Amino acid sequence: MATVRLWTDAEIAAAPRVRAVFDDIRATRKSDFVNNFWRALANQPDLLERTWANLKTAMMVPGELDPLAKELVYIAVSIANSCPYCVHSHTAAARSKGMTDAQHAEFLSVVAMAMQTNALATALQVPVDPEFQA
Amino acid sequence: MATVRLWTDAEIAAAPRVRAVFDDIRATRKSDFVNNFWRALANQPDLLERTWANLKTAMMVPGELDPLAKELVYIAVSIANSCPYCVHSHTAAARSKGMTDAQHAEFLSVVAMAMQTNALATALQVPVDPEFQA
Amino acid sequence: MATVRLWTDAEIAAAPRVRAVFDDIRATRKSDFVNNFWRALANQPDLLERTWANLKTAMMVPGELDPLAKELVYIAVSIANSCPYCVHSHTAAARSKGMTDAQHAEFLSVVAMAMQTNALATALQVPVDPEFQA
Amino acid sequence: MATVRLWTDAEIAAAPRVRAVFDDIRATRKSDFVNNFWRALANQPDLLERTWANLKTAMMVPGELDPLAKELVYIAVSIANSCPYCVHSHTAAARSKGMTDAQHAEFLSVVAMAMQTNALATALQVPVDPEFQA
Amino acid sequence: MATVRLWTDAEIAAAPRVRAVFDDIRATRKSDFVNNFWRALANQPDLLERTWANLKTAMMVPGELDPLAKELVYIAVSIANSCPYCVHSHTAAARSKGMTDAQHAEFLSVVAMAMQTNALATALQVPVDPEFQA
Amino acid sequence: MATVRLWTDAEIAAAPRVRAVFDDIRATRKSDFVNNFWRALANQPDLLERTWANLKTAMMVPGELDPLAKELVYIAVSIANSCPYCVHSHTAAARSKGMTDAQHAEFLSVVAMAMQTNALATALQVPVDPEFQA
Repeated sequence: MATVRLWTDAEIAAAPRVRAVFDDIRATRKSDFVNNFWRALANQPDLLERTWANLKTAMMVPGELDPLAKELVYIAVSIANSCPYCVHSHTAAARSKGMTDAQHAEFLSVVAMAMQTNALATALQVPVDPEFQA
Repeated sequence: MATVRLWTDAEIAAAPRVRAVFDDIRATRKSDFVNNFWRALANQPDLLERTWANLKTAMMVPGELDPLAKELVYIAVSIANSCPYCVHSHTAAARSKGMTDAQHAEFLSVVAMAMQTNALATALQVPVDPEFQA
Repeated sequence: MATVRLWTDAEIAAAPRVRAVFDDIRATRKSDFVNNFWRALANQPDLLERTWANLKTAMMVPGELDPLAKELVYIAVSIANSCPYCVHSHTAAARSKGMTDAQHAEFLSVVAMAMQTNALATALQVPVDPEFQA
Repeated sequence: MATVRLWTDAEIAAAPRVRAVFDDIRATRKSDFVNNFWRALANQPDLLERTWANLKTAMMVPGELDPLAKELVYIAVSIANSCPYCVHSHTAAARSKGMTDAQHAEFLSVVAMAMQTNALATALQVPVDPEFQA
Repeated sequence: MATVRLWTDAEIAAAPRVRAVFDDIRATRKSDFVNNFWRALANQPDLLERTWANLKTAMMVPGELDPLAKELVYIAVSIANSCPYCVHSHTAAARSKGMTDAQHAEFLSVVAMAMQTNALATALQVPVDPEFQA
Repeated sequence: MATVRLWTDAEIAAAPRVRAVFDDIRATRKSDFVNNFWRALANQPDLLERTWANLKTAMMVPGELDPLAKELVYIAVSIANSCPYCVHSHTAAARSKGMTDAQHAEFLSVVAMAMQTNALATALQVPVDPEFQA
């Protein structure tokens, strides 16, 4: 259960601002399926519009990093933040962008490594080396 | 200041187990510089050996992901975990593996995006779509 | 499923220390409904008494901030800590204290903003300006 | 030390896109002081523009919540995320918006309370009451 | 639902590398029950082998701390990281190592205390006393 | 620098409510040294009194767990929450309660292990085994 109502397709069709965002999600992703995250955000049209616009810019505009690397960074943050929904949706997104099982395994290995050295550096309160200065 | 003493090169040279790890760090990285993280871990030879062995396997063995993508995942976890030392050391490592300013900017944009949608998904308690099932 | 047993009304009625806290919760909130959090804490009467006493002081004694602002702060912490139960119970509490959908939307927008600038400040390791000194 | 260079006023003056954002920050805040966060983001003009635009919308457009309540929510997230820079800058911002010492004390008391009940709810894995359903 | 498939006993029996780890888990724990964590990791034999080897070293080799203290530290980290699976599995492990209800209550009380003073120290940005220097 | 002023001994002596708490801290710990955390909290006498009272109950009343185990749990939470002050003060406290270097190493090893399996369980979204039910 969510803390807000999830909008149905009928409700979306009847609300022009929300429908415009959903139409763009469907067109951009070339798929009719729109996941629950957007159906929950539909309750807040301003936030819905801004979040979708920012996500398109951050994730879908061709840029300097390949799309799979960006999805892996997204999942990494979601794991560290303990967000079950985000881990599920972006693991699915990474697979749809070609992530193999072997890449998933290697990714998990990096995340697990980062988690443990993060804890050790914090536990030991290691001072930053001057060599790392920008 | 650290919660443990940082070992000097002289102390490391005098302790065979620690020296063996530091020799391998220097050889693997093709550099004489060994950063404070390892000088702090030197107090705990077992943990030092295991952490270095695991890090080599996770980060340096050629695998399915390119080395820069792995560094970006590492930094992403370190940001979400609020680890200053880790952010500094792995941002430096990413630069040494070729990260450009434009790539850094795009990476930051993905991390910022993930942080906010993580918060929204958690705030709204969005139920996981069955379509994401493995 | 919980990691401890949730107490039923019959069990609570039979345990004087626990019953005293539940009676006070019901009287303070002017409602017979007592949520699962307290039924789980009932296994630990000391902790139950202290937690309820602290919560009454922090949240219910009229003070310098309005009750809705305090609930929003509570939800904000719960989101950042990824606590599903806490997000649900305090979103419900905020609504019972008058939070409108528009206020909820604006609150989410602030939380999403804080999350992303937190990540950017950490990623960039921005030094604190002397102007912010107390 | 930051992981990127902090821009000086002279550099900002010489870069039209960055200068436009800084001019708007100064005009919006009615102050010449621009804090280090923006001087670090200046390295990434796209992200600088988007972050400032989003912040203005989230924090400065008159809305449904009072400006101090929004700052308190911002600080709450920053505490839970362990972001020193963010805690400093938004505590200063809250003071400039009128936060008294008594309000600060009450705010801290709410945050401390949320932190401990978050941990207890997670430790006990309390199931969400159906009464909290949206 | 998991983001990967959970392996059945039949699949494990048919995969020599995975079976070897599962045989060792069963022998070490003196129990036929192997929990879902390992059935999920079975998809990634390298990570499975390394994780189990590290866990045995960290948790099961007789050392300087008693086994219950180590489980409590494990649960404490899992609570702070908001990991439901980890809280469940290690609370069960602590009980199997003799944790009483009174010890559980006292443990929860320490965790709740740490959470709130962590938040206060972060909110107040308390400078580290020179007396704490190693 | 802190977000509030740190009280000097002269200021504390002149404020009866604050002085009473500091007198009790000194008497309970059998030491004249009072660390900065309390000097920062002195700005908020209510919160100071409640925090000290709760800490005494949680940490200093003889109970079911040994004092060192409780300090280790405290440090574990502080590491996972990335609280530098808390890591420093409670590592020092653990040493004053007899923690050896070998115990510290073993503790770090458990924390590092928990961090990585937390991340893996979250990344894999492992469903809780019915066997762990309370």
